[in-house]
Amino acid sequence: MIVLGVDPGSIVTGYGLVEKDGSNLTYVGGGDILLPRSWPFYLRVHGVFKSLIDIIQKYNPAEMSVEDIFFSKNVKSALKIGHARGAALVAATYCNVKVFEYSPLQIKQSVVGYGRATKEQVREMIKLILKLNDKGKLSFDTSDALAAAICHQNWLKFDNIHNR
Amino acid sequence: MIVLGVDPGSIVTGYGLVEKDGSNLTYVGGGDILLPRSWPFYLRVHGVFKSLIDIIQKYNPAEMSVEDIFFSKNVKSALKIGHARGAALVAATYCNVKVFEYSPLQIKQSVVGYGRATKEQVREMIKLILKLNDKGKLSFDTSDALAAAICHQNWLKFDNIHNR
Repeated sequence: MIVLGVDPGSIVTGYGLVEKDGSNLTYVGGGDILLPRSWPFYLRVHGVFKSLIDIIQKYNPAEMSVEDIFFSKNVKSALKIGHARGAALVAATYCNVKVFEYSPLQIKQSVVGYGRATKEQVREMIKLILKLNDKGKLSFDTSDALAAAICHQNWLKFDNIHNR
Repeated sequence: MIVLGVDPGSIVTGYGLVEKDGSNLTYVGGGDILLPRSWPFYLRVHGVFKSLIDIIQKYNPAEMSVEDIFFSKNVKSALKIGHARGAALVAATYCNVKVFEYSPLQIKQSVVGYGRATKEQVREMIKLILKLNDKGKLSFDTSDALAAAICHQNWLKFDNIHNR
C-alpha cells in the first residue's frame, strides 16, 4: 500500500509517498509544491488543493498521513497553516483518500526513535530508511512529509487503526 | 449579478446570496451549513467545501465575498477557522467563482455605517436592507455572510475592483 505524507504550508507544501511491502519501506516519490508568493493568498490555497489532486491521481495512494497541529508561533501563522492544511484535507477526502493524523511526537518517534529530534536528524534518518543518499538534497518540507508517511506505515502494523 | 457571502467556521458556516439590480439589493438565498460535532475534523472541513459547491451550483453566483481574518481569540481557534476558510476559498476557486476579501471594518461600515457595530446591529440592518422581517430569525452566521455579500455589491459601484 502506498501512503501519501503531507507537510502543508501556504508557500511550500512538502509531499512524500512511501510503499510498504512486508517490512520493507520503499520511496515512491516526493517533492515540494512551491506556490508563487506573488499569487493572491486564496489562489495559493487552491494551488495546494489542485497540486495534491494531481499527485494523488499520479501515484494513487490509499491513505494520507499528516501532522496534527495544536500549536503555532502566533495567530497569524496559525491562520495561514490552517488554510493550507484545510486545502490538503479537502483534496484527500475529495479523492476518497482516508486521512490519518499524528502528533509531531509520534512522527519523530517513529522515524528517529525519540520525540525531540531536530529536523536535521529526521532528514538523515529518512535518507537511511528510504536509501535516498544518492538522490541529492532533501528539503525539510519533503523529509517531514516522508516522515509522516513512514509514521503511518509503522502504526499500521501495531494497531488496527482502520477500525478506530 | 449574484454575490455569495460566506462566514466560515468548522461547526457552522453561514452563507448568503444577494443580487443587485440597479440600486436594488435582493435576497436570493441563505442559511447555515451545520456540520455534526461527532464527525472527525477533516470530514467537517471537507463538508464546508462540498456544501459550498452544492450552493454555488444551485444559485450560480458570479463572485464570492468573505471576511478577511487577521486576528483570532487564540492559536487553536485560528487553526480551526483557517481550515474552514481554506475549504471555502478552494470551493469558490474550484467553481471559477472569483474571491474578494474585506476587512470586518469594511463589512460593518457598508451595512451599518460604522465599523464598531455589534452583531445584533448588523443583523437588524440586514433585515431592513433585504426586507427579511417576515422571514423569521436570522442566525448571526447567516447575517454576517449576507453582510459580506452586501459589502461586495456596494464596493462594486465605487471602485473598479475587477481591475485591481
